[in-house]
Amino acid sequence: MPPQSRRWFLGLSAAFGGALAACRSNQALPVEPRALGAPVGPYGSRSRFERAIRFFSRSAVPEETASKTPLRETCGIITPSSLHFERHHGGVPDLDPAAHRLTIHGLVDRPLVFTVDELKRLPSVSRILFLECSGNGNAEWKGGNEPDVQRTHGLTSCSEWTGVPLAMLLKECGVQRDASWILAEGADACKLARSIPLAKAMADVLVAYGQNGEALRPEQGYPLRLIVPGWEGNINVKWLRRVKLLDRPAMTREETSKYTDLLGDGTARQFTFDMEAKSVITHPSGGERLPSPGIYEVTGLAWSGRGAIARVEVSVDGGRTWTDAALQEPILPRAHTRFRSPWKWSGEEALLASRCTDDTGYRQPTRAELVAIRGVNSNYHNNAIQSWRVAADGAVTNGNA
Amino acid sequence: MPPQSRRWFLGLSAAFGGALAACRSNQALPVEPRALGAPVGPYGSRSRFERAIRFFSRSAVPEETASKTPLRETCGIITPSSLHFERHHGGVPDLDPAAHRLTIHGLVDRPLVFTVDELKRLPSVSRILFLECSGNGNAEWKGGNEPDVQRTHGLTSCSEWTGVPLAMLLKECGVQRDASWILAEGADACKLARSIPLAKAMADVLVAYGQNGEALRPEQGYPLRLIVPGWEGNINVKWLRRVKLLDRPAMTREETSKYTDLLGDGTARQFTFDMEAKSVITHPSGGERLPSPGIYEVTGLAWSGRGAIARVEVSVDGGRTWTDAALQEPILPRAHTRFRSPWKWSGEEALLASRCTDDTGYRQPTRAELVAIRGVNSNYHNNAIQSWRVAADGAVTNGNA
Repeated sequence: MPPQSRRWFLGLSAAFGGALAACRSNQALPVEPRALGAPVGPYGSRSRFERAIRFFSRSAVPEETASKTPLRETCGIITPSSLHFERHHGGVPDLDPAAHRLTIHGLVDRPLVFTVDELKRLPSVSRILFLECSGNGNAEWKGGNEPDVQRTHGLTSCSEWTGVPLAMLLKECGVQRDASWILAEGADACKLARSIPLAKAMADVLVAYGQNGEALRPEQGYPLRLIVPGWEGNINVKWLRRVKLLDRPAMTREETSKYTDLLGDGTARQFTFDMEAKSVITHPSGGERLPSPGIYEVTGLAWSGRGAIARVEVSVDGGRTWTDAALQEPILPRAHTRFRSPWKWSGEEALLASRCTDDTGYRQPTRAELVAIRGVNSNYHNNAIQSWRVAADGAVTNGNA
Repeated sequence: MPPQSRRWFLGLSAAFGGALAACRSNQALPVEPRALGAPVGPYGSRSRFERAIRFFSRSAVPEETASKTPLRETCGIITPSSLHFERHHGGVPDLDPAAHRLTIHGLVDRPLVFTVDELKRLPSVSRILFLECSGNGNAEWKGGNEPDVQRTHGLTSCSEWTGVPLAMLLKECGVQRDASWILAEGADACKLARSIPLAKAMADVLVAYGQNGEALRPEQGYPLRLIVPGWEGNINVKWLRRVKLLDRPAMTREETSKYTDLLGDGTARQFTFDMEAKSVITHPSGGERLPSPGIYEVTGLAWSGRGAIARVEVSVDGGRTWTDAALQEPILPRAHTRFRSPWKWSGEEALLASRCTDDTGYRQPTRAELVAIRGVNSNYHNNAIQSWRVAADGAVTNGNA
């Protein structure tokens, strides 16, 4: 508990406008079940009263689109696998793990083909890591078009991934001296492929088969995907079927015509791998209506592709003043970090924002700072501060506009 | 990666009996999808090829039984919510969160009734914590009756729980001087109820509404449950409807006729709250058949209700010699901790076992040590070392027999 919590508690009744202090214990208790409930079962599902879903636009080609995580409705740092964001370029293939293979070839001494069962038998690693599409927040470049945090920031999620270090597989194949990049290719209809520097592949990349304790979900690459900690989502190739060792990047469609950053001067920046430090308030956020003045817990998520979150600050006056938020343990490198900060809303208009600093010392920029360097042509890598406007009637809207 | 991994890698080809070195890259590649795959969707589900399920015996009263987590098929430390173990005494009620209330009353100055939405608005905490039924492993008291780790140890799971500190709610109600216990009661058909010392309630107990990023699952207490870190599962009351402040324990059925420990001399030990340090190898484990001699990663889980796991040792010779296993980060207090240890199986009979030590210095006992103190009448709190026997043909069976 942060040190504020004691003050907070003392204001709890006031925060609820007396509702809590109304001693409702004399009310009739709700009707309770008299009959036995449901029996145990083999594989559970959520309550029929729960409604949170991924958001996606109706599209002419629903196989080539994205769905976004409902960040306001989720809690903690783990994203439920059923609500993990999606971004597919050719739909979700229906792969039989017994038939699937991973081939490693190219500039190696011993090209190898692995079955899924062989990989699962190898020494494995589990890590809690965020995964963020580099297109997350792209509509915000031009300012405040999206109404809620699901649509502004819902292309990030965080899971416990389990897999085999790619370095172990590459060493087994015997990487040749002139190899300097790998090409990773998926088994989806579009054969999505990305180039990754060999140094990263040897450092911390996983060939993952597990997500939040069970097999990868189909839309997350079942049965095998790359996990490239801290790097843009697109490079974490799903349905992984092939790793080829090269002496240069392959210059695939996904790193030339797409996933480059068009700068203000019309040139394009290629290979922007790292997802820079970013944070967003998930509550209160766009689409909510605060029921009354009083005390609220401002909460949200922060993450950095370069390491651990060191600090999150919250502003309620549009960035004029900032207060340190409490960071929820565990604070893990390259994972979502939950922050919390109490706020007493007076009932006047307010502009909420968060900014984070990672353990490299890098601080999340304002949108103006980002635009000064990057222009407004970009689709990718928008990590600017997000604001939420609270009107006097409690309605919360996008404050970037 | 543990220091062993380099040695391990060098033996990888040997481990697979040459299979990996067979350069199968010249094989025909598997057929790949040519057509677009499935579109994005609102709420995902697992692959149709996945089969892991909770185990439960057919019972005359399936509402009053347990289902067990498939620990061999899960990975990492997070248990998928769909596979979290169950233990119900009156079935799973179907509760509408809009109608559900939590009442706090008894020895307080201001009895209060909370709606679920009111609780969610309060300052919250998220923690990754194990939950273990104190009956976990009960068949092993008499030695080796269960064939696999799901049946011996499947009444433990680990989730990220999110909720409101109970202490905050109790302070708001104004706990009276003579209060020393609370009674927590569920809204299930049997109104399961347990007494908890007030000191624990004020220390770290949560009124939880979230599990692994979304709402609690129905079978885990939706919409509200107690989370009592490190204490036996039964006391983490599900479908929480009432907390009453008392000056003595309530002596409910669940702490008198059940959930007491019958000792060797016929007396019963009451209120065994803490789950002591325990570990189990999940792979290789009962029911598996090792395909060939070679190198295996021995892996499993360790946890302690009293703190963090400090050490896990693995034996392959029935406890004569022990080797330190690598502990997977993050190592969190009162959470499952994943351990890994390489083992070169010669093809001769072996007896695998793990033992853990927590950060209080307590070490998991042998079954003989436990029986010497507790006798064999107990149903609860069996944290003895579990062995798995590997036969010369690779078949793995319960080594406790």
